[in-house]
Amino acid sequence: MTGTPVWSVDPRTGKQREQVAAEATAREVDRAVRAAHAARGALADRTTRIAFLRAAADLLDGSAARVVETADAETALGPGRLTGELARTTYQLRAVADAVADGAYLDVRIDRADPALTPPRPELRRYKVPLGVVAVYAASNFPLAFSVPGGDTASALGAGCPVVVKAHPDHPATSELCASLLRRAAAESGLPADVVSVVHGFDAGLELIRHPLVTAAGFTGSIRGGRALFDAAAARPVPIPFHGELGSLNPVVVTPAAAAERAEEIGAGLAGSVTLGVGQFCVKPGLVLVPEGADGDRLTGALTKALGESGPGVLLDHRMRENFITGVGERAVLPGVGAPVRPGSGGAHTVGAGYLTIAARGLLDGPRTYGALLEECFGPVTVVVRYADQGEAADVLDLLPGNLTATLQLSAAECAGPDPTGAAELIGQVTRLAGRVVVNGWPTGVAVAPAQHHGGPYPAATSHSTSVGGTAIERWLRPVAYQSVPDPLLPPELREANPLGLPRLVTGGPAA
Amino acid sequence: MTGTPVWSVDPRTGKQREQVAAEATAREVDRAVRAAHAARGALADRTTRIAFLRAAADLLDGSAARVVETADAETALGPGRLTGELARTTYQLRAVADAVADGAYLDVRIDRADPALTPPRPELRRYKVPLGVVAVYAASNFPLAFSVPGGDTASALGAGCPVVVKAHPDHPATSELCASLLRRAAAESGLPADVVSVVHGFDAGLELIRHPLVTAAGFTGSIRGGRALFDAAAARPVPIPFHGELGSLNPVVVTPAAAAERAEEIGAGLAGSVTLGVGQFCVKPGLVLVPEGADGDRLTGALTKALGESGPGVLLDHRMRENFITGVGERAVLPGVGAPVRPGSGGAHTVGAGYLTIAARGLLDGPRTYGALLEECFGPVTVVVRYADQGEAADVLDLLPGNLTATLQLSAAECAGPDPTGAAELIGQVTRLAGRVVVNGWPTGVAVAPAQHHGGPYPAATSHSTSVGGTAIERWLRPVAYQSVPDPLLPPELREANPLGLPRLVTGGPAA
Repeated sequence: MTGTPVWSVDPRTGKQREQVAAEATAREVDRAVRAAHAARGALADRTTRIAFLRAAADLLDGSAARVVETADAETALGPGRLTGELARTTYQLRAVADAVADGAYLDVRIDRADPALTPPRPELRRYKVPLGVVAVYAASNFPLAFSVPGGDTASALGAGCPVVVKAHPDHPATSELCASLLRRAAAESGLPADVVSVVHGFDAGLELIRHPLVTAAGFTGSIRGGRALFDAAAARPVPIPFHGELGSLNPVVVTPAAAAERAEEIGAGLAGSVTLGVGQFCVKPGLVLVPEGADGDRLTGALTKALGESGPGVLLDHRMRENFITGVGERAVLPGVGAPVRPGSGGAHTVGAGYLTIAARGLLDGPRTYGALLEECFGPVTVVVRYADQGEAADVLDLLPGNLTATLQLSAAECAGPDPTGAAELIGQVTRLAGRVVVNGWPTGVAVAPAQHHGGPYPAATSHSTSVGGTAIERWLRPVAYQSVPDPLLPPELREANPLGLPRLVTGGPAA
Repeated sequence: MTGTPVWSVDPRTGKQREQVAAEATAREVDRAVRAAHAARGALADRTTRIAFLRAAADLLDGSAARVVETADAETALGPGRLTGELARTTYQLRAVADAVADGAYLDVRIDRADPALTPPRPELRRYKVPLGVVAVYAASNFPLAFSVPGGDTASALGAGCPVVVKAHPDHPATSELCASLLRRAAAESGLPADVVSVVHGFDAGLELIRHPLVTAAGFTGSIRGGRALFDAAAARPVPIPFHGELGSLNPVVVTPAAAAERAEEIGAGLAGSVTLGVGQFCVKPGLVLVPEGADGDRLTGALTKALGESGPGVLLDHRMRENFITGVGERAVLPGVGAPVRPGSGGAHTVGAGYLTIAARGLLDGPRTYGALLEECFGPVTVVVRYADQGEAADVLDLLPGNLTATLQLSAAECAGPDPTGAAELIGQVTRLAGRVVVNGWPTGVAVAPAQHHGGPYPAATSHSTSVGGTAIERWLRPVAYQSVPDPLLPPELREANPLGLPRLVTGGPAA
């Protein structure tokens, strides 16, 4: 391999494991994109795509031991979590295959000609076509489900778009392994392997977003990195859609009635959600509104106990560990901020979980002073904001930027009906803030399901799309309408006899 | 009125008719946006919105004589065309009301909880919520259908979003009149009048796109103006979607067989499409591929005859007239360009229609020299490119940027089946270029219908959405998923009993 080496690193020791690739030069990025573009015609056949997605899932499942071992060695996420994540990833590939087979995603609409209208209406037949080559920017924190074989790749391939993935530097060996399995699945399904490929390197990522043949991008990562790529996508001579998931505080509101009813359960549940995956989830609850008073104290007591008992964890890389320790430190020194369980360094290569506290009144009096508390801090920490009344809680929510999720902990009485508890009002308020609203659960754990929405107002996402669930495929398609096109010349999806048996919305009288 | 005056001008004479408004200051824009934002809650009720849209249509219809007279006085489009455009506009308002009543646009999806899955799936219920205040940038060329009461306004209000329109300077009196009717309809429907308002002035348009409470924008206009606003929307601290329709060449391909069969009919039809609305349609055919040889000559002969007989027309304003004359002049002096009917000045305030010709070979040999021929020229002119064979025609199509439409003129035999005429291949090629493909018709005339798509690859549009038809409303909504939210706390749209009777996609077993 020539070029800047790409190393797989063990975050448990900080040591380089092996060189697995080299950073792609501009010329190599160009070659990957051109090869993907040349392969797009082969992806046009729906049946072949379905077989490919299922073959990819089977190959990944068949290589589970090796995939999990490789991912664990360079992410330290543990075999249990990674086995679950692989199952989620292959479930997702199969779910996209099922969605492609169903065909509703093509949103076929047919309007019969109506000569009686003024002006007369011509026949119109509309469906959606794939955009072309999609750039996928892999996330650090899900080396499978939001990386090379993840939701962006699966949905783009399902839509009929070839994919070039910019691999995340935290798991290059896993990326190479998964890419080789996906490419093998393509070849076994009669497709060119180049329908999916991987490039490494920061500069390669910039080359990719600027390449004229790239038609759209999916991204999961930081606000800074995501915004830079979003800006580059918008500044192109031909701008392209950039579907980025950037950052989220994922607020939680615990009502006084809920705290009275379930203080200990909520405190323990919160600790579990904050420490899941060593706090490296996009949907980690980062700001929790807890009422002042004895019930709230019981809740924070349970949180203190659970977090105090949690062992140290290994973050994905040493830069993240440093950022976490710095970020916690910057927040902990702010006036009025307490640290009942001080998160921070837990050893040479580990961190300890914890939480910070502040009074809502203080936050509201100095929102600029406390700006950092309103920003995501990646890792096992959350900020507990103690509020005096519902007005204060609402005012704190008003300070927040957009979020992937918002969670409410409610009492049984509040769940039973909207009046006069104000719970429905709270639902309305957090709906304005987030893409998913959770009641009496925790936001961590994003189910792969048709009705899922994983997105939200900026900076949670740069578009109004979702990167998880049944509608993720919509990101990679554009509509085309055919006016008065003779039946034999129509794509099979739109022909009168409906040879592919697609669901469709027909308007107007019987066919002429 | 204080501030820079806004005059209504008669394009037939270039004389100012009356001062109808003043340009909005930054403070006035802020006031309009804040008032709209404050009114958004009132738009939440679907039934009220439906009544409002229908009342607006009725009021516009009831004021038809005044609306048409006002619009004609400042656009010179003529009472016939404007009467038709008003009918289209009110039809559109009612069609949006019907779509809101139907409710399919909310895309309700419900996934039942499934505890048997690994991990267990929680209950998810998803629909779409309005974004908030929408900025609409009115077009010059449709003072009703793509202006204050037009498709962007109708679809945004239908979605539940208040609207601030930046009026087009070519028809300020019409804009004020229509705004007053829309505001009256709002008041009569029990809504604050501020759910829709109008601001005037270039700077006001920039203030609007940068306003923190503006959540999305719709635009119809030039590439230069649209791109500047798109860039401003993307550069905001919180970027917002910008749905712009910017410019389109709308290529037409006439096959040799079609020319052999219908040369005169096609030539005359083309002249009609090019001169409709004095060539001021976004979908005017601007580049026509005509075969070399006798049949093509018959076609251009018919075109020459029809355009030669067409009378002079008045463009929307004097700046457009100058741009048209300059644009035609720049193109006509290029080497190898002919002007069988030279378009240009037709009098002090009018222009004459015409067309230019060039050989495909010349265009292909010097695409940089002929760049101007591949750009839209607003007004009654088209460029006929004579091609020697299908390969040349395909190569010219490959030079084109994105388009709203692409049109094919085919013979009866080509329409009867795809083999071996290459017609299906042509359909495939132009599908990559455009948002709407027309066979044996003309692109002018964009039917308002559920399956319509009025958009296309950049610069035809800055997003993959449509500004006309059943799916235009999707631009102003974002999805939200509710996880395990108790039924009494759900929005009525998502409740188990479906009290609003909405169409919905349900996945999984029966309700728990």
